[in-house]
Amino acid sequence: MTTESQLSLVDDLAAAVSEVATDELSRLAASTDRSGSVADGLPLAVVRAHGVADVQAAMRIASAHRVPVVPRGAGTGLAGGAVAGTGHLVVDLSAMDRILELDPVDEIAVVEPGVLTARLDAAAAEVGLRFAPDPASAAISTIGGNVATNAGGLRCVKYGVTREAVIGLDVVLADGTLVHTGRRTMKGVAGLDLTALFVGSEGTLGIVVGATVRLKPRPLVTTTASAAYASVAAAARACAEIAAARRLPSMLELIDRRCLEAIDRFAGTAYASHGDALVIAQADGPAAASEIEAIAAVLGKEATWIEQGVDEESSDRLVATRRQILPAIETEGAFFIEDICVPRSRLAEAVERISEIADRHLVRIYTIAHAGDGNLHPVIGWDPSPDDVPGVMPPAETAAGDEIFGLALELGGTTTGEHGVGRLKRGWLEPEVGAASIDVHQRIKAALDPLGILNPGVGF
Amino acid sequence: MTTESQLSLVDDLAAAVSEVATDELSRLAASTDRSGSVADGLPLAVVRAHGVADVQAAMRIASAHRVPVVPRGAGTGLAGGAVAGTGHLVVDLSAMDRILELDPVDEIAVVEPGVLTARLDAAAAEVGLRFAPDPASAAISTIGGNVATNAGGLRCVKYGVTREAVIGLDVVLADGTLVHTGRRTMKGVAGLDLTALFVGSEGTLGIVVGATVRLKPRPLVTTTASAAYASVAAAARACAEIAAARRLPSMLELIDRRCLEAIDRFAGTAYASHGDALVIAQADGPAAASEIEAIAAVLGKEATWIEQGVDEESSDRLVATRRQILPAIETEGAFFIEDICVPRSRLAEAVERISEIADRHLVRIYTIAHAGDGNLHPVIGWDPSPDDVPGVMPPAETAAGDEIFGLALELGGTTTGEHGVGRLKRGWLEPEVGAASIDVHQRIKAALDPLGILNPGVGF
Repeated sequence: MTTESQLSLVDDLAAAVSEVATDELSRLAASTDRSGSVADGLPLAVVRAHGVADVQAAMRIASAHRVPVVPRGAGTGLAGGAVAGTGHLVVDLSAMDRILELDPVDEIAVVEPGVLTARLDAAAAEVGLRFAPDPASAAISTIGGNVATNAGGLRCVKYGVTREAVIGLDVVLADGTLVHTGRRTMKGVAGLDLTALFVGSEGTLGIVVGATVRLKPRPLVTTTASAAYASVAAAARACAEIAAARRLPSMLELIDRRCLEAIDRFAGTAYASHGDALVIAQADGPAAASEIEAIAAVLGKEATWIEQGVDEESSDRLVATRRQILPAIETEGAFFIEDICVPRSRLAEAVERISEIADRHLVRIYTIAHAGDGNLHPVIGWDPSPDDVPGVMPPAETAAGDEIFGLALELGGTTTGEHGVGRLKRGWLEPEVGAASIDVHQRIKAALDPLGILNPGVGF
Repeated sequence: MTTESQLSLVDDLAAAVSEVATDELSRLAASTDRSGSVADGLPLAVVRAHGVADVQAAMRIASAHRVPVVPRGAGTGLAGGAVAGTGHLVVDLSAMDRILELDPVDEIAVVEPGVLTARLDAAAAEVGLRFAPDPASAAISTIGGNVATNAGGLRCVKYGVTREAVIGLDVVLADGTLVHTGRRTMKGVAGLDLTALFVGSEGTLGIVVGATVRLKPRPLVTTTASAAYASVAAAARACAEIAAARRLPSMLELIDRRCLEAIDRFAGTAYASHGDALVIAQADGPAAASEIEAIAAVLGKEATWIEQGVDEESSDRLVATRRQILPAIETEGAFFIEDICVPRSRLAEAVERISEIADRHLVRIYTIAHAGDGNLHPVIGWDPSPDDVPGVMPPAETAAGDEIFGLALELGGTTTGEHGVGRLKRGWLEPEVGAASIDVHQRIKAALDPLGILNPGVGF
């Protein structure tokens, strides 16, 4: 794009939308996200949408100028899905942050995409409800971003992922058309499930400008048990036994020694003194007390240490520990967080093989797992060096990361359980889903975004 | 299609697939379904698929001949989605009925589309699991049909619909290509959610030839409470209060007087003597006993009669009563079952307005509701007459039915909660979802089925 046509684009935008920024700081901020991914340059401009009409106008103008558009929320994505580079226009939804409706009888909320996940949950709490999906990033991520990636989280093992909580969407298509999908009712099968098609589409098919979400009764009782193990294998066995006992925890997290050491350094705790791995389980709802007893009995068999959250405060403390892992790792250098998911029966094998991969490549891998779902987050960490290429892991770390992706597929799993493909895992999509599926993806993309201007380079 | 080209089609099929039937009885059977919908004539032939290769071959030949294809399972659909007429080819999946895998550790099953829903559930029961979606037709409907319509059922209020239970599909596209969607893991966001796109697509985008489904722990305890009310309005109020108390029944059914009278005539019971409406609630899982106590306390406030299922046997009897409603109504004449879903807060209003509509048009309407979901089944019944047009309701019944569809939309609901659009509700789709959504539907259809040969006239 020439400077002249860039000026014409910005002029057109300035005349049509509430706010457009072209200062370097705004463009720089939009060229990266929490994945550490860095674009090849700065985007042309950032439209800060203050309403649906702004997004429609921006898309109409982008279509006319054939300019690629990168939608963006809080920029907390971990796969590079909102990273805008040279020649891109950014549509920033974070200022559209109103909770438009919260209906305690129908147990639904209607929200703008920029609402922070934790804020929606807090609003729901006031009427005894909650927004069940619970990404670890809930305090900083937006509903729009959750929808774009079909975000998972700690409670998915019982409550499902974002897709299960979204019953309707307002979406602006590439040409500026506004489409409503889904409905306000608990069930409905009129037409294709376009809601599910847009959930997890990472901004490649349309821009989510509104969401109708289903809320769930907030459990009155939540109980917690935590146990340490001499080995990760023993911890994984305990998790498998909980499932085999047909127990349904509302959270089942596995944390390895490296993570425990990082937390201990960060928070002054002494978790690593108990063993090589920690399991945190929660149960909630009317049977929470008896469920956690049964779960604790299973956890206790091979445990070196066990503690039950006897009250809300101790439960909160244990879960806060889990949520501190990423902040703790962030203080220890550069990192890339993987997000593989394997059949639950292969969890122990996956954890052991990741450890072997780390040893073989002499790299540092911290592993956290949503064990109840078989969803592992091996976090590859390294000490930054002046030789680093921005947004790219050093060679040994890259090789280890690729082996972990390959491992996921070998075990019958996926290269991304909840973070998305983004820019970073694009090369792994076809090996995972196959050429016929990629062809279907591309046909749908061409049908909805014929100019290919929506988040190019992301996803498929 | 000329007789000559028809012969050529059948010759091509006979050479390529395991079994193709052209006898009149086979074609006649495929020209109707349980909705009472009747096609304009008989289809050309019925391919009885015995494996994926048969379906692929049939689709390749149909594409070459540009012949429309109607996929069919058990023919239990209630919206005319599997009704094949003049010039159509039927692909019957009912012989593909193997459970290929049932993994008690990963809690998944891999099945062919012709497996009966109840048979899968029974197989899962042997290892302490269950297939949670529970259409009232479970004993006679197939998994493939459940997937095609995104079938709901009695337990959806707690366990979700078919979409929530399906994690992967094998689908044959219009050109014969086999595509695998989804995965075997509990979570996964690699690429678009094509699984959800095909679930509920009523055979318009591809033919489901395999499904990977998620099973759930089978509750060890299920409890039941049933209460009668002087009016439907009082029964609906009781249902609303259960939700307001943030209780989560695993089933919450509302049955009106006409249904009760039909059951009483059919089964020799005396439910109608208790009042104008009956509510059946279940709770299951580890807190089932305390939950049903709490639910019964709510139900009891305005009840004229209340009974708690004190054991498995009495619980089963109550639920069997519910499942007998449709068979009972079937003995009383012709009928058409509607399937509207409204926001839960509008349930009482919907029931009352349906009753008014029945009175105004002097028609017979039996109403059953999955009250926990706001999903109502007003069943319009009439005495068959020689003047009836096959597959079409008499004028007064048609007018009443249309008013009920309009009512659903007026109350912010949908014209189909779980049965699908099929051929019968096609005219109501655009008023419900809007022109922009229809355009997106058509673009996706054209992308995946450019010749438009898959189940034309169904859905959108």
